[in-house]
Amino acid sequence: MGEKILQAEKDIHVRFSEVDAMGVVWHGSYLLYLEDAREAFGRQYQLEYLTMYQHDHVAPIVDLKLQYRSALHYQDQAKIVITYQDSDAAKLIFDYKIYNLTTRQLAVIAHTEQVFVGTNGELQITWPAFMIEWKKNHGLL
Amino acid sequence: MGEKILQAEKDIHVRFSEVDAMGVVWHGSYLLYLEDAREAFGRQYQLEYLTMYQHDHVAPIVDLKLQYRSALHYQDQAKIVITYQDSDAAKLIFDYKIYNLTTRQLAVIAHTEQVFVGTNGELQITWPAFMIEWKKNHGLL
Amino acid sequence: MGEKILQAEKDIHVRFSEVDAMGVVWHGSYLLYLEDAREAFGRQYQLEYLTMYQHDHVAPIVDLKLQYRSALHYQDQAKIVITYQDSDAAKLIFDYKIYNLTTRQLAVIAHTEQVFVGTNGELQITWPAFMIEWKKNHGLL
Amino acid sequence: MGEKILQAEKDIHVRFSEVDAMGVVWHGSYLLYLEDAREAFGRQYQLEYLTMYQHDHVAPIVDLKLQYRSALHYQDQAKIVITYQDSDAAKLIFDYKIYNLTTRQLAVIAHTEQVFVGTNGELQITWPAFMIEWKKNHGLL
Repeated sequence: MGEKILQAEKDIHVRFSEVDAMGVVWHGSYLLYLEDAREAFGRQYQLEYLTMYQHDHVAPIVDLKLQYRSALHYQDQAKIVITYQDSDAAKLIFDYKIYNLTTRQLAVIAHTEQVFVGTNGELQITWPAFMIEWKKNHGLL
Repeated sequence: MGEKILQAEKDIHVRFSEVDAMGVVWHGSYLLYLEDAREAFGRQYQLEYLTMYQHDHVAPIVDLKLQYRSALHYQDQAKIVITYQDSDAAKLIFDYKIYNLTTRQLAVIAHTEQVFVGTNGELQITWPAFMIEWKKNHGLL
Repeated sequence: MGEKILQAEKDIHVRFSEVDAMGVVWHGSYLLYLEDAREAFGRQYQLEYLTMYQHDHVAPIVDLKLQYRSALHYQDQAKIVITYQDSDAAKLIFDYKIYNLTTRQLAVIAHTEQVFVGTNGELQITWPAFMIEWKKNHGLL
Repeated sequence: MGEKILQAEKDIHVRFSEVDAMGVVWHGSYLLYLEDAREAFGRQYQLEYLTMYQHDHVAPIVDLKLQYRSALHYQDQAKIVITYQDSDAAKLIFDYKIYNLTTRQLAVIAHTEQVFVGTNGELQITWPAFMIEWKKNHGLL
């Protein structure tokens, strides 16, 4: 397993529709931010959903954890840092930290795990060939 | 064109996540209610999305209008009445009225138009065979 | 801490808008189901958001975990079972199991933790008076 | 009424969560894009929700129209052009055109109308003072 850290950042601007009746970002809206972060990571490291799909795989989320430390408000500026966690198991694992740039506080810590499923519907229990190639290209193997 | 009125009703219970920072249902959340109403209509009159799909068609929305008359609040009980509007053009047209049962006021008036597209991607400019059959079965032809 | 089990159930009907491009319920849509389950629990055990609000408290989610075991598809019937987990810490803790009634499989296991915050913005580190009353009324104290 | 055209633009990147089971942007997801466009307009022309709120007003949408001309797909690049339509009636009226930059096609035409409501809940039937000031500042009066 490599020592290299693969990390991307994504700036967030809180939308009105993401805020709930308590005036803070609804806990579910953060999943949109995590998705934005995964897309930013995919663009930076050539691991986009469409690339996977061209290699006949999709990568559904099987595990999701969020800890909410402080609230984001409407119009707050925030930043997500997404970090790839390499694993022997055939799983795409990401850790996330969302910072409120307005208050300088940590807002949310999150973690997702995705498995690889062939477009034929079969769960892949070992790393697919295109992902082994990807790991090599990024100094992880 | 037939004189028969095809109409269905659907009760709604406002969810916390559907309410915005002003404490009322966010204007976009009503699209979920319209969707619920179309599903209720489909179940009652055998016109479900899956039925269309089995006949190799989908019916995307091409026109959407909403007029907001009074607000719904969290936990308000509401009722949608959905009415089919028959048309010579090959379009599935629905009118909707959403009533706030808590205040007895009309909350929203809406209108949607859907076209028929073959699962091969082709827009159908005449009524598809399964829809002509459906119209006959429901006294519209 | 009491031995009593407080549990509620809620039936779910998968909406078209909750399904993603892979044809299965989008991982974020499950948060709506968890919310529905908490509301069902609140109605059954007199612990609704509005009740809390009348006692000058809100209960934001601070911890959220979901494990996705099998997919739900459009129009699948599902059932959530929500179970209250009593705690010495001033937290409202729920465990959830979502079952796919169409396939008889377990779809999702989830867990949420909520803290009590006064409407003045202050985090409550001990159980608020109205919650101690609630616990007594439900055999937990 | 002035002749000046107030117009803003906003680039859109289609999110995975905004796409439906037909593989195209769900018709309701466009409301998020319209909201993004209104925010971009507000930033450019000093008419943000928070500014209104500081002047003790909110501006709920009372009328919404969308015509869907061509689909947007996952990862498509799009652009919204939002144009302010001045009116004698005390209404904030916007027209929108959403262009698919990938296919160069017009995707959606939209229209929204907002009224002014005091934070005391009262509908304003004439233009509020801060909006008359805003119109003067932007060459509309």
